[in-house]
Amino acid sequence: KMECYFDNSASTRVLDSVKDIVVKTMTEDYGNAAAKHRKGMEAEQYIREARRIIAGTLKAAEKEILFTSGGSESNNMALIGTALANQRAGRHIISTAVEHPSVYNPLTYLEELGFEITFLPVDHNGHISLQQLEEAIRPDTILVSVMYVNNEVGAVEPIEEISRIIKAKNPSVIFHVDAIQAYGKYVIRPKKQGIDLLSVSGHKIHGPKGVGFLYIRSGVKIKPLIYGGGQQNNLRSGTENVPGAAGLGVAAKEMYTDHEEKIRRLTELKDYMIDRLGEIEGTLVNSKKGTESAPQIVSVSFEGVRSEVLLHALEDKEIYVSSGSACSSHHPGISGTLKGIGLAQKYLDATIRISFGIFNTKEEIDYCIDTLKELLPVLRRYQRG
Amino acid sequence: KMECYFDNSASTRVLDSVKDIVVKTMTEDYGNAAAKHRKGMEAEQYIREARRIIAGTLKAAEKEILFTSGGSESNNMALIGTALANQRAGRHIISTAVEHPSVYNPLTYLEELGFEITFLPVDHNGHISLQQLEEAIRPDTILVSVMYVNNEVGAVEPIEEISRIIKAKNPSVIFHVDAIQAYGKYVIRPKKQGIDLLSVSGHKIHGPKGVGFLYIRSGVKIKPLIYGGGQQNNLRSGTENVPGAAGLGVAAKEMYTDHEEKIRRLTELKDYMIDRLGEIEGTLVNSKKGTESAPQIVSVSFEGVRSEVLLHALEDKEIYVSSGSACSSHHPGISGTLKGIGLAQKYLDATIRISFGIFNTKEEIDYCIDTLKELLPVLRRYQRG
Repeated sequence: KMECYFDNSASTRVLDSVKDIVVKTMTEDYGNAAAKHRKGMEAEQYIREARRIIAGTLKAAEKEILFTSGGSESNNMALIGTALANQRAGRHIISTAVEHPSVYNPLTYLEELGFEITFLPVDHNGHISLQQLEEAIRPDTILVSVMYVNNEVGAVEPIEEISRIIKAKNPSVIFHVDAIQAYGKYVIRPKKQGIDLLSVSGHKIHGPKGVGFLYIRSGVKIKPLIYGGGQQNNLRSGTENVPGAAGLGVAAKEMYTDHEEKIRRLTELKDYMIDRLGEIEGTLVNSKKGTESAPQIVSVSFEGVRSEVLLHALEDKEIYVSSGSACSSHHPGISGTLKGIGLAQKYLDATIRISFGIFNTKEEIDYCIDTLKELLPVLRRYQRG
Repeated sequence: KMECYFDNSASTRVLDSVKDIVVKTMTEDYGNAAAKHRKGMEAEQYIREARRIIAGTLKAAEKEILFTSGGSESNNMALIGTALANQRAGRHIISTAVEHPSVYNPLTYLEELGFEITFLPVDHNGHISLQQLEEAIRPDTILVSVMYVNNEVGAVEPIEEISRIIKAKNPSVIFHVDAIQAYGKYVIRPKKQGIDLLSVSGHKIHGPKGVGFLYIRSGVKIKPLIYGGGQQNNLRSGTENVPGAAGLGVAAKEMYTDHEEKIRRLTELKDYMIDRLGEIEGTLVNSKKGTESAPQIVSVSFEGVRSEVLLHALEDKEIYVSSGSACSSHHPGISGTLKGIGLAQKYLDATIRISFGIFNTKEEIDYCIDTLKELLPVLRRYQRG
């Protein structure tokens, strides 16, 4: 047996350098960053340094980075915060049929408040139609929200083109990008790509859980979700999570150091996995090789095997994968993305997601393929019987 | 020199046992608690155990504990979440003039939405008048929010009596208690004390920053602040912060182990500090000895010395205190509580808060008093000059 953690798009192992700074800020530099004495200043320094690093990775200004409690809060604040702050300009919002629940459900909440939401469908590659997008933009559209990398299949939306179309038709529309599966994997330049708001989570990039950030382009009107002591320029109150922010900063720095090499390695792992899955009959890979889809995600369907059964059979061999998206596992039922890309009925509950992090190796893939070859015939026989 | 960290009500040093579980859940048991495989189950176990411990300290049910990103989120959810969920029953809310900004500012936001807020004044002891409270309760009152321990002076409100008065006049009113400076210091029994919602923060009790909880009595109607994957019974979405929750659980367990002895020690430190402050002329102590005010907080005013000047003079001697409340230091200006208790004008910007944690010692107090005796005459001369 060989432990293969292939569920990195659900959560990742924290880097040692991240662990070290978290420990230091919990046990030595534990001041409240708002305190006026030296221990407060020291704590604030960690926040500043993390903000500086993160802003650097995006070529953004430091004041454009807002720390949050994670990707879900970032998405909620981006959507609810801008909708409430800009509703005088209109109450129409556009998004897609394959967003994560932390985008979809705040939009449903806004619908209850009287906002109107248009959900654009996607093609079999997981891409929205740029023409449909253009047609959907109205004078009262205030916000468009599109994910960068789909969390279930790894489809990558053409963010720059989408922004160009939006801004050409209605320059006052705010463009939000859920980059929770993209940050650390892609070189993202909000200004150049025309992104106004960008959501990121720490624990998807070997940083801590319970922390994330929202890039907010300078000038975008947005309301807080959490009111109080006025931290972070009055946009997000609450004692600053120094260990979380510092850990996220270190993880961001690490991910964007030798970045091309890291992504080359991930893409190699992905391509190797896809190639080797081709050796198994009755499989359908829903992700693309190379740069056509995200470097860390392989969605694969196995004819005649229920994904949950396979997940547990694999876990017995210490191989950890996801059936659908872990983030939405509390909402049982069939995945929106898999339906959205038009996956045949027989594959809908027969799909697993394999997702890589920087600790994975080619040997693990070999072990996983060998195990699949051994398990699948048995499971298929069993399920037919 | 001797380092004296006397700003524990702003933030505390994390316990070693807390650090250990945070490290373990970041580097070994790092699964997503929503994942269906073993690494997900293991992660979920930490959350369950933390919930079990915390529920135990309150004699509450496990399902009544909701993990949040900290005290500010707990307060925001308690106020905004119940106001929005119960507005059909009425739009009147009662609170006090000495609440923390994370209560005061969400209430101001609710005021913008059309809710009506009554802020009750306090007497020189920091207590609201129970008669005024009773008179303020109306048929359309839906929520009363009163802090347990005041963060600036340590005044303790008579929570049980307040609840009795509320429930006698209008049983459908929801009673929220901000217990951020009280949890860990008092034995709290929400059911017995008639508390419907209780806010707690991790980093005030030697637990991690970026995590807290909200006790929500079973049956209380409340709306989420953050929508998404449906975690925590659909009330607070977002990948569960396993290290944070686990760390908070360990801290809660520690604080309520040998609890009486711990509180006896803190009270002893407080009383000793108050006694020794009496040796210095021109001082006014705004906290009470013994059980009349919180065991960890000493608010003291020094005639003729600006608190910020004193704070920095003390920091040069490695003594860390707070001027006003660190949590609201982004809102410069005079403290609401100090004005609220009727502190004379000359003391308003001459007040510091000394707050203890379980690591403090009597020797530190002696060093602090010696240092004050040395510094104050110089500072007073200098400020007059």
